[in-house]
Amino acid sequence: MGKSKKIINDPQDVVTELLDGLVRASHGTLAKLPDVTAIVRNPLPANKVGLLVGGGSGHEPLFAGFVGHNLADGAACGHIFAAPSPDIVLAATMALDSGFGVLYLYGNYAGDNLNFDIATELADEAGVKTRTVRVWDDVASAAPGNENERRGIAGDFFVIKIAGGVAATSKDLDNVYRVTSRARDSVRSMGVAVSAGSLPETGERTFELPDGEIEIGMGLHGEAGVSREMLLKADPLVERMMAQILSDLPFVAGDQVCLLINNLGATTMMELLIVSRRTHQILVESDIRVHDTVVGSFCTSQEMAGFSISLLKLDEELKLYYNMPAKSFAFTKA
Amino acid sequence: MGKSKKIINDPQDVVTELLDGLVRASHGTLAKLPDVTAIVRNPLPANKVGLLVGGGSGHEPLFAGFVGHNLADGAACGHIFAAPSPDIVLAATMALDSGFGVLYLYGNYAGDNLNFDIATELADEAGVKTRTVRVWDDVASAAPGNENERRGIAGDFFVIKIAGGVAATSKDLDNVYRVTSRARDSVRSMGVAVSAGSLPETGERTFELPDGEIEIGMGLHGEAGVSREMLLKADPLVERMMAQILSDLPFVAGDQVCLLINNLGATTMMELLIVSRRTHQILVESDIRVHDTVVGSFCTSQEMAGFSISLLKLDEELKLYYNMPAKSFAFTKA
Repeated sequence: MGKSKKIINDPQDVVTELLDGLVRASHGTLAKLPDVTAIVRNPLPANKVGLLVGGGSGHEPLFAGFVGHNLADGAACGHIFAAPSPDIVLAATMALDSGFGVLYLYGNYAGDNLNFDIATELADEAGVKTRTVRVWDDVASAAPGNENERRGIAGDFFVIKIAGGVAATSKDLDNVYRVTSRARDSVRSMGVAVSAGSLPETGERTFELPDGEIEIGMGLHGEAGVSREMLLKADPLVERMMAQILSDLPFVAGDQVCLLINNLGATTMMELLIVSRRTHQILVESDIRVHDTVVGSFCTSQEMAGFSISLLKLDEELKLYYNMPAKSFAFTKA
Repeated sequence: MGKSKKIINDPQDVVTELLDGLVRASHGTLAKLPDVTAIVRNPLPANKVGLLVGGGSGHEPLFAGFVGHNLADGAACGHIFAAPSPDIVLAATMALDSGFGVLYLYGNYAGDNLNFDIATELADEAGVKTRTVRVWDDVASAAPGNENERRGIAGDFFVIKIAGGVAATSKDLDNVYRVTSRARDSVRSMGVAVSAGSLPETGERTFELPDGEIEIGMGLHGEAGVSREMLLKADPLVERMMAQILSDLPFVAGDQVCLLINNLGATTMMELLIVSRRTHQILVESDIRVHDTVVGSFCTSQEMAGFSISLLKLDEELKLYYNMPAKSFAFTKA
């Protein structure tokens, strides 16, 4: 494939310009912090546990698109596919703390782990208590039993949804941490890459996939998946992905779940709905009840074609927070 | 570019399967009519003017994704890029009529015009009154003064939003027609194509764009635009598009508008937000106030890369209906 054609200005300005575009589109409900690439609610939420999400840019609408009412209070945004630096995380932490501490919620990548951990120490020195939940929902990235070696992918959304609900209603950071950890432990995801996205700085593809081939389990930055093979039809592809997802937690007959079919970038809604169809059929066959379904672009990898399937296993507590209304740039639940 | 790799099953089944996927994802709020590819609200709305939208498939989430509360009551769905046949439109019309008639709302294309007009005659014979509003928002497709020769593109969404509000609150078909026509006359859009989508039946691209070139004003099915040229940076590209949009209605200082930045398929949210940024700047410079901004995939052309900008000029009446809460698969307004 040729180099991509991105609608951008100076490639060095993509993050600041996209965040400026987001703030303008928010009509006063979001603000950018001075001097750092962090987005916060406007006005700043007060008298609550702060919920700070973040990670590399280039996955829009993740993360800043989920800053809003009953969702995250702020997002620390790095360069394209690069973790936010500790000073960005710290600035957002100080802005979000209203005396009840701040929960950090982000995907389990080495750079993010390092920089958020440094910010934790700096926040502690500044007298702000933080706790951390890393999302590791990608079943393709490490074997069962080694969940904390897995990558965070679109399941981030479900964990943010639950965390936003509990952070809006509980002033106890330890309780927000407890419920958010339970949400994280209840999510499993798997993706498939059909064609590569490209980097805005260079136009170069993030990986190469030969004509007619797909990679099951590929990560958001082109990390290796579980197998590369010829393009499958939708139904058998979904069956393979669902078999691995269902057996991992495991999800069993009688469970109740929420389902996310996430667009990695360039896949059509037509295809996502065909995937949704077979996924629902399999869940019915498995006697697993679907409480809610969301389909769309939640966690992308530039214009990568492909999708992921995420399941969140509900219990009464998680369902309560999932059902809360919410409103942000990228997600509204009435 | 090589042939596309679509995640589908039998290419002949894409429309029925995507609609089945949509119905399953709706959790009982949508239903498919027997024997025809039409989606309706479940339960069927009663005691109101029916609002029927429709057109070719392949533009998801348009049209069926906007069937819901305070939006459309049903969608008649054709094959990929082909108008729904009169029998589909008629079946949906009969399902939606509860004694107050049905408003037809669709994009201004020859096939849609013909088939909906035939359905109008058949509905009339069956004793159901209908009226028709065709959307022709694409300023690139005919000169000012010849608005009714223009194509309908993403501005469909704004007209559906307004029509859904008035159809939910007025039992007078002529009044629903009047307000919806006013909304249609208040919308202007323009698109740009960066790379081609492909047909699910064959994998063939819908048009060819040489490396590094874009086409300003290209239509949703590869129809000719106003100029083909080398890739521009985002800001000057937006400036060119906005100059043509603003001068067309025209939109003038003191106006209040809603803004839609629509993804034609494969363009990243990163780019759309950079486009949103410059669009907002231009509107501020023009002393035009933006009441609301929506950014995302509303009217696509498979995995075509590119975007369109739509403006809806508000007055008190249109603003009232725009502001109403709404909920469908693809759009929720709280």
